[in-house]
Amino acid sequence: MPLQSIEVAPSAYTYPLLVKQLLHSARATADGQEIVYRDRSRLTYRQFFERIGRLANALRAQGIGQGDTVAFMDWDSHRYLEAFFAVPMMGAVLQTVNVRLSPEQILYTLNHAKADIVVVNVEFIPILAIIREQLETVKKFVLISDDGSTMSSFKVPYAGEYEALLAAAAPEYDFPEFDENTRATTFYTTGTTGLPKGVYFSHRQLVLHTMAVTAALGSAAGQGRLHRQDVYMPITPMFHVHAWGLPYVATMLGLKQVYPGRYAPDTLLQLIRTEGVTFSHCVPTILHMLLSSKASENVDLSRCKMIIGGAAFPKGLAAAALARGIDVFTGYGMSESCPILTIAHVRDELPDADAQAAERIRTGYSIPLVDLRTVDMQMLDVPRDGHSSGEIIVRAPWLTQGYLHNPAASEELWAGSYLHTGDIGVLDPRGMLTVTDRLKDVIKTGGEWVSSLELESIISQHPAVNEVAVVGVKDDKWGERPLAMIVLHQGRTATPEEIRAHVQKLADEGHISKFAIPDQVRFVDSLAHTSVGKLDKKAMRRQLAN
Amino acid sequence: MPLQSIEVAPSAYTYPLLVKQLLHSARATADGQEIVYRDRSRLTYRQFFERIGRLANALRAQGIGQGDTVAFMDWDSHRYLEAFFAVPMMGAVLQTVNVRLSPEQILYTLNHAKADIVVVNVEFIPILAIIREQLETVKKFVLISDDGSTMSSFKVPYAGEYEALLAAAAPEYDFPEFDENTRATTFYTTGTTGLPKGVYFSHRQLVLHTMAVTAALGSAAGQGRLHRQDVYMPITPMFHVHAWGLPYVATMLGLKQVYPGRYAPDTLLQLIRTEGVTFSHCVPTILHMLLSSKASENVDLSRCKMIIGGAAFPKGLAAAALARGIDVFTGYGMSESCPILTIAHVRDELPDADAQAAERIRTGYSIPLVDLRTVDMQMLDVPRDGHSSGEIIVRAPWLTQGYLHNPAASEELWAGSYLHTGDIGVLDPRGMLTVTDRLKDVIKTGGEWVSSLELESIISQHPAVNEVAVVGVKDDKWGERPLAMIVLHQGRTATPEEIRAHVQKLADEGHISKFAIPDQVRFVDSLAHTSVGKLDKKAMRRQLAN
Repeated sequence: MPLQSIEVAPSAYTYPLLVKQLLHSARATADGQEIVYRDRSRLTYRQFFERIGRLANALRAQGIGQGDTVAFMDWDSHRYLEAFFAVPMMGAVLQTVNVRLSPEQILYTLNHAKADIVVVNVEFIPILAIIREQLETVKKFVLISDDGSTMSSFKVPYAGEYEALLAAAAPEYDFPEFDENTRATTFYTTGTTGLPKGVYFSHRQLVLHTMAVTAALGSAAGQGRLHRQDVYMPITPMFHVHAWGLPYVATMLGLKQVYPGRYAPDTLLQLIRTEGVTFSHCVPTILHMLLSSKASENVDLSRCKMIIGGAAFPKGLAAAALARGIDVFTGYGMSESCPILTIAHVRDELPDADAQAAERIRTGYSIPLVDLRTVDMQMLDVPRDGHSSGEIIVRAPWLTQGYLHNPAASEELWAGSYLHTGDIGVLDPRGMLTVTDRLKDVIKTGGEWVSSLELESIISQHPAVNEVAVVGVKDDKWGERPLAMIVLHQGRTATPEEIRAHVQKLADEGHISKFAIPDQVRFVDSLAHTSVGKLDKKAMRRQLAN
Repeated sequence: MPLQSIEVAPSAYTYPLLVKQLLHSARATADGQEIVYRDRSRLTYRQFFERIGRLANALRAQGIGQGDTVAFMDWDSHRYLEAFFAVPMMGAVLQTVNVRLSPEQILYTLNHAKADIVVVNVEFIPILAIIREQLETVKKFVLISDDGSTMSSFKVPYAGEYEALLAAAAPEYDFPEFDENTRATTFYTTGTTGLPKGVYFSHRQLVLHTMAVTAALGSAAGQGRLHRQDVYMPITPMFHVHAWGLPYVATMLGLKQVYPGRYAPDTLLQLIRTEGVTFSHCVPTILHMLLSSKASENVDLSRCKMIIGGAAFPKGLAAAALARGIDVFTGYGMSESCPILTIAHVRDELPDADAQAAERIRTGYSIPLVDLRTVDMQMLDVPRDGHSSGEIIVRAPWLTQGYLHNPAASEELWAGSYLHTGDIGVLDPRGMLTVTDRLKDVIKTGGEWVSSLELESIISQHPAVNEVAVVGVKDDKWGERPLAMIVLHQGRTATPEEIRAHVQKLADEGHISKFAIPDQVRFVDSLAHTSVGKLDKKAMRRQLAN
């Protein structure tokens, strides 16, 4: 028989998954709850709902309608939260502009996304002043400033100031119904080279990410769980993957929310203290900045739960945060994945603080609806044994369905109908994922994957070695073979044979595959680094290829 | 501009919301977790996943494929849970048969749903023996019995015994991908009169209900929250709205689950004790049965959280349960709503046990994505002031989109594009809903709705009144007017004027609308009751109309 589609009565409401639907429960139950912006403003949800309507009317008055793109350039604020809802709810697309990119990159992204209007904090006017003449599609600017002033030494003609436009607009707006696969948001992700690539998310995807993250965070037995009495503050930018989607979660649940503006450790700590913030998320660098801030000594952080992501989470930093009473744990994802795929909730009894730190810096358990695999080069699953590594590939209802206007990169991302994260990871029998490397830094030799990071770590334990980089070089028989480049400590010597013997010994002990013993060991005076101080393997490979 | 649909790369996985997707997180992390059936069997999730595959293969061997309908007749069991997944995952429809209906009604539902095969517990063979000759579409029977025996004094030729068929089938089954709007389940709801009506739910609807219920139960601050260390046992039948959807929630989260078979207080209490059950749900009658069971005195119930629904939750019963340490709270919904719409989590500080009981018997707060309104006869919202009552109408992503093969009833259900619950309720400013009456028992007079239940409660406070029923009678001027039928206490007398004066006094004090004062008061010897002891207002209205 054919499949049976459900019968739909002509009058039945078929309920598209639209961003506006996230507001039903908050509208019903959280009217009086607060949304705080620094020490500048304090709204109730009731006012927030009105301001969503006002923003939509204000944008409509500027000619914005369905299918148009609204670019936003602001620090984390209640205004940004208003845009998270109002712009997609109109049927328009919200482009969250990464204000840390170079003016040239910002220009590229605004033109590539075909932005129609830019809503811009007065602090970023200098950027627009530089690129304004080259903007191809932007017709108008709306200015934002905390004090309502719109003074700037650079002149950009603007249509109005955000607060003034909202004040002049009506609070009622009849947000339309439309297809749930309509694009809601767009932003750009930058690799080390090449043009920024646009990712995009539909209404359906934002709603499903919100539901799954809420289910995952809520169902934790104790550690790291989110609930209705939490006070939420983002410490990852709202322009970066919707601040990991947590503002949508917090709003759906009707939580008290705090938006800190530009990140300054003192302000953040002050808001944690005065507003009673209990749930946040940030990259390890920011966590380190908070902990080492003088001001943090006077702030009780023991009620804070923080998801840490965006980069490897050093164990020492996790231990330091735990010692301060902060409930830190890893969340994993990327721009392409909306972003959350896994969360490292502690599920087992652990013997001590060291084990706690070790568990929390792992990558985490898949959240509901995520189909996550670790696979070999033929996309076959590697064992979930805690040892075997493979590329992490995923399916979930909220993954970007491609890169904007970039079919070739989209197909590469989705090769074999799974999204390729480009990360190498290990799954253990509990389902806990640990990311071990980037695929591009892995050496594929004799059907095995050797982690260059692991091999570097082993070689660096040799007493003569100051710094080491391992890259793969083409090999007719094995595919690739590892090549080690070593800077020795001053006054120390070593031979390639000694280095190889050192690796051999650790391979014999089972610490690394025998395929890892490098064929070539070269001693060099210095290694290439990127501008942020990381080993520049791309440059090394280029150099070796010449 | 037109709306912008997201670009989808040709290789991108578009992720339909299918029942099978609920298993990803459990497969990844709960392999060793347990599913217990009474004292009879104890499976790991790993075995459970295999048995899902085996069941699908066993059904395929019986000729079942996409679009076919598999009717299930069993008590709550691991087998039923297997069917919850395997049957829809094959692309077939699971019909959960209400085994408490009369044989004639069961016959009607099997024929109406066009069931192809019946999987039936040997206990229900006597029913099938009666109706077998009149089954129009059923081609085969599979028998279930706890001990593998298939003896019955009634002879129904069967294709095999459940465990034997599973043992003979392979555990691998390549569950296909298909449209998320494919029908997954069907069951029948019965009113006091008329034929049973079929409701039905798609894969998408079951997934979204599961996500929203998990989000709602997980995000509770403390009281009534569900988490990964809970042990789940249903005490509402799996044939009734998928045991309120909780087996899907429990499986997605990888919880330990306990299935109790036929409900017997001793067995239920024993399982709570030995298996450490912490989360369940039942109707008030069952809760009462558990509390008054002799066996309950020796069981610690203080770790149990229980959602109570399906009928009004008496305050005295709630207080008794709270006194035993059971965390009881109301859940609201109906067959048509999959079912959960609201949950009465306690969100406020409450002064005492009495206030706790009063709050927990209210109807509850809308769960995420539910758009719930209380409206007047023109479908305009009544104030959310804690006093104004209106019909409860809803939109949510998981409401039946009609009644099976019954377009007229479907349109009535969805009049004006909202699902009409037929319940009357009051919303207070906190968003807490309280159901006050059934729409059909409300008297619509002079543009106001007078609750017959409330009016009966007031009249019953008159010292001469033993029992009272109020119904609406047609009135040319007012639409309807209340008519009271009263049975007096033996040896007591009263006049219609005295009764009217009694109501008038309470109306003057503001307890009820002045429209409620009954025009007609009739003294009768007895009132019509239904077979379960409720006032039979339908019979009374019929009698008055003659």
